[in-house]
This record gives sequence, C-alpha cells and structure tokens, in this order.
Amino acid sequence: MSEANRSSAAARGAGVLELLRLFKNDDVAADRYAAACLDKTKAAEPVLKAFEYLPRDTSRRPGPLSGIPVAIKDIIATADMPTTNGSPVYKGVVPTADAWIVERLRNLGATIFGKTVSTEFAWRHPGPTVNPWNHDHTPGGSSSGSAAAVAAGLVPLALGTQTLGSVVRPAAFNGVVGFKPSFGAIPRTGVHPLSPSLDHVGFFARRVDDVALALSLLGGSSDSDRHGRPVPAFEVSIEGGVAPIEKPRLAIVRFAKWSRAEPEQQQVFDAAIAKLRDAGGVLEELELESLDQANWSAVNTILTSEGAFIFDGLVERYPDRTSDPLKSLVQTGKAHSATEYLGAKATQERLRFEFAKSIWGFDAVLTLPAFGEAPKGLSYTGDAEYCAPWTLLGVPAISLPAGFGKNGLPLGLQVVGAYREDYKILRVAKWVESALKFNPGIPGI
Amino acid sequence: MSEANRSSAAARGAGVLELLRLFKNDDVAADRYAAACLDKTKAAEPVLKAFEYLPRDTSRRPGPLSGIPVAIKDIIATADMPTTNGSPVYKGVVPTADAWIVERLRNLGATIFGKTVSTEFAWRHPGPTVNPWNHDHTPGGSSSGSAAAVAAGLVPLALGTQTLGSVVRPAAFNGVVGFKPSFGAIPRTGVHPLSPSLDHVGFFARRVDDVALALSLLGGSSDSDRHGRPVPAFEVSIEGGVAPIEKPRLAIVRFAKWSRAEPEQQQVFDAAIAKLRDAGGVLEELELESLDQANWSAVNTILTSEGAFIFDGLVERYPDRTSDPLKSLVQTGKAHSATEYLGAKATQERLRFEFAKSIWGFDAVLTLPAFGEAPKGLSYTGDAEYCAPWTLLGVPAISLPAGFGKNGLPLGLQVVGAYREDYKILRVAKWVESALKFNPGIPGI
Repeated sequence: MSEANRSSAAARGAGVLELLRLFKNDDVAADRYAAACLDKTKAAEPVLKAFEYLPRDTSRRPGPLSGIPVAIKDIIATADMPTTNGSPVYKGVVPTADAWIVERLRNLGATIFGKTVSTEFAWRHPGPTVNPWNHDHTPGGSSSGSAAAVAAGLVPLALGTQTLGSVVRPAAFNGVVGFKPSFGAIPRTGVHPLSPSLDHVGFFARRVDDVALALSLLGGSSDSDRHGRPVPAFEVSIEGGVAPIEKPRLAIVRFAKWSRAEPEQQQVFDAAIAKLRDAGGVLEELELESLDQANWSAVNTILTSEGAFIFDGLVERYPDRTSDPLKSLVQTGKAHSATEYLGAKATQERLRFEFAKSIWGFDAVLTLPAFGEAPKGLSYTGDAEYCAPWTLLGVPAISLPAGFGKNGLPLGLQVVGAYREDYKILRVAKWVESALKFNPGIPGI
Repeated sequence: MSEANRSSAAARGAGVLELLRLFKNDDVAADRYAAACLDKTKAAEPVLKAFEYLPRDTSRRPGPLSGIPVAIKDIIATADMPTTNGSPVYKGVVPTADAWIVERLRNLGATIFGKTVSTEFAWRHPGPTVNPWNHDHTPGGSSSGSAAAVAAGLVPLALGTQTLGSVVRPAAFNGVVGFKPSFGAIPRTGVHPLSPSLDHVGFFARRVDDVALALSLLGGSSDSDRHGRPVPAFEVSIEGGVAPIEKPRLAIVRFAKWSRAEPEQQQVFDAAIAKLRDAGGVLEELELESLDQANWSAVNTILTSEGAFIFDGLVERYPDRTSDPLKSLVQTGKAHSATEYLGAKATQERLRFEFAKSIWGFDAVLTLPAFGEAPKGLSYTGDAEYCAPWTLLGVPAISLPAGFGKNGLPLGLQVVGAYREDYKILRVAKWVESALKFNPGIPGI
C-alpha cells in the first residue's frame, strides 16, 4: 500500500473491514494509519472537543483487530488512561483495571485510541463536544464524543453506551452507524452504571459490517455481570462482511408521536420506505400501542430508581461537583416506592413478551431514531422517545444514515430486531444500507 | 419381585433409586407400588393431613422415572388437579397448564401423586398438616405436606419450594433429606411466586442419591423464567448413585445465633463433626460475619417488597379470604422505597461475591438447618434464620437427618455449597450421609 493510499484511508474515513483488508499484507501500514488518525484528531480537537484524553502512542498488538484504533467512551474503565465518567468528581482518576470490553479489545490487538467525551455519568449534563456537521448543534448524548469522532473520520470504531438513547440518537445526529446489541450481549463490568436494568454497551462505525464485526468479536459473558447473556455466535467475513437478508419483511412502526417528527425526517423515512419497496422489501405498517403507551413511564421509573440508588451518596458528598440534572434524577428516583419499581420491571417483562409476539413473521422493525436533526445549542442532547422503547425491551437496534435535514445535519433511520437475534438484524441492516445507497460523507471540521 | 417385597417397599419407605432397581425387570411392580402408596396415604390422611388433593389413579407413562410417585406442593400448577396455592381464593381452581417441572416429571414417566399442603402462598399462614413424629407439633413450612408425606413414607419424592427456609427447615423437622438447588437451576414457570429474587424449587426424599437423581433429570431452563440458569449437567447411576467426595474439607459455620440453638441440636451437630472427623473429613470453623449481619435485613426487604407487589391487589380484592400474615407482608413491603429495595438487592450481590471467596478451598459448609426440633403447635412453622442466608445467596443447600431432640422429633444438619456447584455438594452430602450412618426410620401414624 502506498503512503498516499494510507493517508487517504485516514482522510476519507475508511471502515474497519476495509482497513483490515488494507493492512493484511502490510505490517507497517497499520501503525502509520493509527498515527495519521492521531494527527487528524489533534488537528480537529480544538474545535470538535470529542476527546477527554488522547493516547500517548498508538502501539498495537497482533490480533484480528490489529491496527484498528478504537475510541472509548469515558465511562468505560481503562487501566492506562484516566476515566472521568464525564464528572469533575473523577477528574484524573485512573482505574485499577480495564473494563471487560477494553481488555477484550486489547487482546484482539485493537489500539485503545483515547477516551471520548460523555455526558456526566451518561445522564443529561452535557460535555463540550460539538456536532461535526454544524458546530452550533449538539452531537447528541450521552456518547457524544464517540459519535462525533467516528463522524469526523478520526477513528473507524468507537464504544458507546445506551440507557435510553445514547448510541442510536447520537449516531443519527452525526450521520454514522450506531448499534446497540441485545441487552446482556456485552458484559458491562468496568462500565459506570446508570441503570443496570437498561445499560447497554454499543458501537459506532461507518458501516453495518463494521459494527457486525465488533459484536462478533466483542460479545461474551462475564461472571461479574450477572445480566450477561451472550447472543448466539456468528462470524463476519473480512472480505465480504455479513450476507444481507434480501427482500426482508419489515414492520413500519411510527408510534403516536410520529406527528411530532420534523417534516424532513418524515420525508426521509417515507422516501426510504419507497426505496426499500423498490428493492423488493415487503413493508407493512405495524402498531405497537401498548409499547407506545407504557414504555416511557416504565423506563423512567426504572432508570430514576436505579440511578437514585447509584448516585444518592455521590450527590450528597459532592454537591458542588454534581449537576442539577443528576441531583434531579436522584430526587425523582428516591420518591419511588419498591412496588412502583417492581411494577415498572413487570411492565418491562410484559412488553418484552408482547413484542416477541408482535414481531413474529417480520424480519425487523423500521422506525425513526429521533424526531429529526440534532437540536441547536450544546445544553440539550436531544430526545430519546424513539430509542427508549427498544432499550426497555433490550432488543438489538441500529441507526443508519438516511439523509439530511433543513439545517444540513444528518437524519437517520432505525432498524430493530427480536431479542438476541442480533445477527439477523445486522443482516437486514446490511440489506437496507445497500438498498438506500446513502453515504453522508465526512464533514470538514 | 414378590408381592411381599413390593408391599414392604411401600411399607419401609424405599428410596427412588432402590425402587427404580426393583422395577427394572418387573413391569407391573411399579403400578402395584404406586397403588400401595395410595392405600397407605388414604389410611394416614385423616391424621396427617399432608394432601390437598389425592390422585384419582396412579397410572404412569414409560420413562426414567416410571413408577415413581411424586407429590407436588400445591403452589405448583397441575392441569389435571386443583392448585389452591394454600389459599381459599384459589379453592377448586384447576390451572390451564402444568408448571414446567410438572410437565417435565410427566415426560419422564413419573406419577403425579396429588397435591400437598402449603402454607398460604408459601408465606406464613399454616395449613392443617401435622408432624408425623408428633402430631402436636408443626411439620414446618411452607412445604408442610411434601415434607410430612415423605417422612411418613407415603411417597419417595416430593416437590417443595423455598423462599426463606421452606425446604430445608421442614426437611429437618421431619427427618428427611431436603435439597434446594442453586437459584435458577429449576425454572419456576407455573409456580406461584412469592419473591422472584428468592424463590427456589426443591426436593424432599429419603436419600441424598434420590434428590441428586431428581436434579440431574429435572434441572433445565425455560424462556418464560428469565432467572433460569441451569447448573452443569451430571448423571446419577441408578445402580450406585453419586460417587461420594471422600474426606472433604468442610467449613463449620455456626453464626452468632449458635447460642440460641437447642442444646440437643448443638450436641447432634458437634457429634456429627466428631464422626466426620473420625471418617477422615477435614473440618474447620469459619466465620461469615458480613453474611450473618446483613442477610436478614436484605432478605426481608427483598421478600416483603416483591411479595407486596405480587399480593397487594389480592389482599385488597379478598380481605376476607387472605390471612393477617399475608396482609402484614403487603403492608411491610409497601413501605419500602425503591432505593431500599435496590440496596437490599445490591447487598445480595455483594454477599454472593463474598461467599464465593469465603468458601474457596472448602468443599462445602456444614451448618444447622434450624434451631432445633419442630415447635409445638400448628400455628407457627418455625424459624428460618439458618436457612435464609443460603436462600439469599442462591447457593445449593441440603438438609440431612442427624438425630433426635428431647421431644423425640428429628434434628438435622445442613450442607451448603458454592453457587452452581450442585453436583459437588451432592457428592459431599453423600459422604456425610454415609459417615453419619443415621436413619431416623419412619414414624407410625
């Protein structure tokens, strides 16, 4: 591979599979690529502010991900880099051990490419990251830096987490692929909890094949995360990626809130449906009324109760270093009774069973990832109403770039599958990606 | 097999493995045995009151448990027999489907031998069953009828459930073997819940080998019980049972409450230790202070919160058909906040990790199953303080008969193992059983 090709791989934001093919017979290419990513990141950071911490070097080990720089959301522990959890309370704190998934990444040969900005403890108080497409807009949250870094072409892969909509929403706002695997598919050991019944680890990348490869290599179980239940194993070919499911049966789910979506988001969604039908997909409208009605109250009761248990002592000890949104989370959660909490958990179970029945006969759900473009300003990371139902259900959800809104910011669509059928949903998403033929490109910073 | 042998098998309370060997080449023997059990039960019932419902016939299917009558605790659903849950609210109600474990038993060829008395919803309000060793004393609860039926030699195997001490304690009070496998080893689908974080299905039998066979055949997982996590599979030889672990290392756990145990119970326990040391066992005292201190509050917060969620509507709808103890459970549970509940669940997790460390290097724990003999009277089923820690931890626990108290009622000892090491604990218990050489026999009713 020529120096020019390598530079252009970094410059044009090559995907993980493409890079692995490029590096295959070229031992030094990977090192140079990672160095180019670091140069590009250093140039972008004064404006983008996607990183809490940049790596000192980009050395790597052999392995199936050797040469791939992976940016890590800063609520995920790294033993050689500070992990701030997006909070001044943890400023400069270096954990004693890697998170399970970071250790796994290292063992696979990936380069741990620094720590990306998270909102405070993955809740609402935002960090400084801007949207690479328009610096006056939020990149979304809570995985703000990971989404922005992939969107800006600084890294081909980044880790995020989602408790309400923190992978799917920023992916849509930044024009990248965001994938939240099934609940429990990836152990959360070493990931700061927000709500253990809802917390998921997920991925940002530029291609469906790339997040598929990530899950195929990074799924697993850990005795220290009892919620873990690995999804069935699958393999992703470096040459061809996953095989698409051709002409799938897709359920179109708009929910009652559809009318509140921006007109451009509605148009992009309906245009995508037309394209997918032209490509041979079978798409039918599906109503999920009980999910639409019950999910928001259940998800909030679970999240605030568990969040209150986790952060109660912290906001009490550090009143000056914790935000109003975090204090408000604790106050709301402390007001719930045990039976209210258990009622919400029972609703979660009931909705999971109902969704499993509803999706029967469909290969996937097609829905919105958000109401539209990333909101203006950095104080509000956007609404999670289109993400929360799937987080509550624990089903795999993936956001794909699908168009642009009226301010030139990206819009996405969301593909959702049945619990633990992650491989299937990735194969459907691969087909959707091919049928849409949409690539937002990389914004200049 | 001669008619005399068959009768004596029923009369002397033969164990499951012994029966399976007797039935091996004798097709009619099993039918006659079950019929003899039914005759014996009908004769005992006017006094013992162990059964809510007796089977109309004792027909059976082929299978590895063909010919084995199994009595079912009456909070476990049976599609062909009423399931009262120990409550007048459910009097005469026949469920639409078998519980998972009942279906499994039928598929294995077992004879579903009626329904045994449970306290109301496996909580405190007792049923009419008496202790077969002394009819003025409680059989313990909540699996009162199952324990008494096995003790009286009416059936060789019975199902119970344990949320605090409802298998281990009545097993000790009735002089039989009671085994509570690891949490999640047996799906609870179709078992009326009391506290889903604590509910376990368990077994009563006369021999360690018999409960080992039961788990080896009846463990499993079900999508409808998400708590399920089967223990590693193992096989039990019908000829030889499980192989004992010879000369195991046992941790003697007395807890601070030791001084409150009856002197005879203390003597039986210390005599057992001496016998086990004589037999080559290595026994060391072990303190589990944090478990001793924290388990009772945690288990009560979890149980009352979850119980309140489950029974709140019921006690409101049926104030005249629900007991004061059930109402009190609901009242206590409703007063807990979500964060108190989550704190108790976190304590449960912490204690599980700590116990896993504490038991490292030991094959099992040896402790008491109860403070002593079954209390006098039928209104109080006894104390669960020696059972609750292990229920909270979700670790396998087995009670073995070990002696008699001052009123001629049985006393037991309890062997406890590491989470999911059920096979190991059964092998240790087999060795303990052999070393103690204690058989309480069968009381005349």
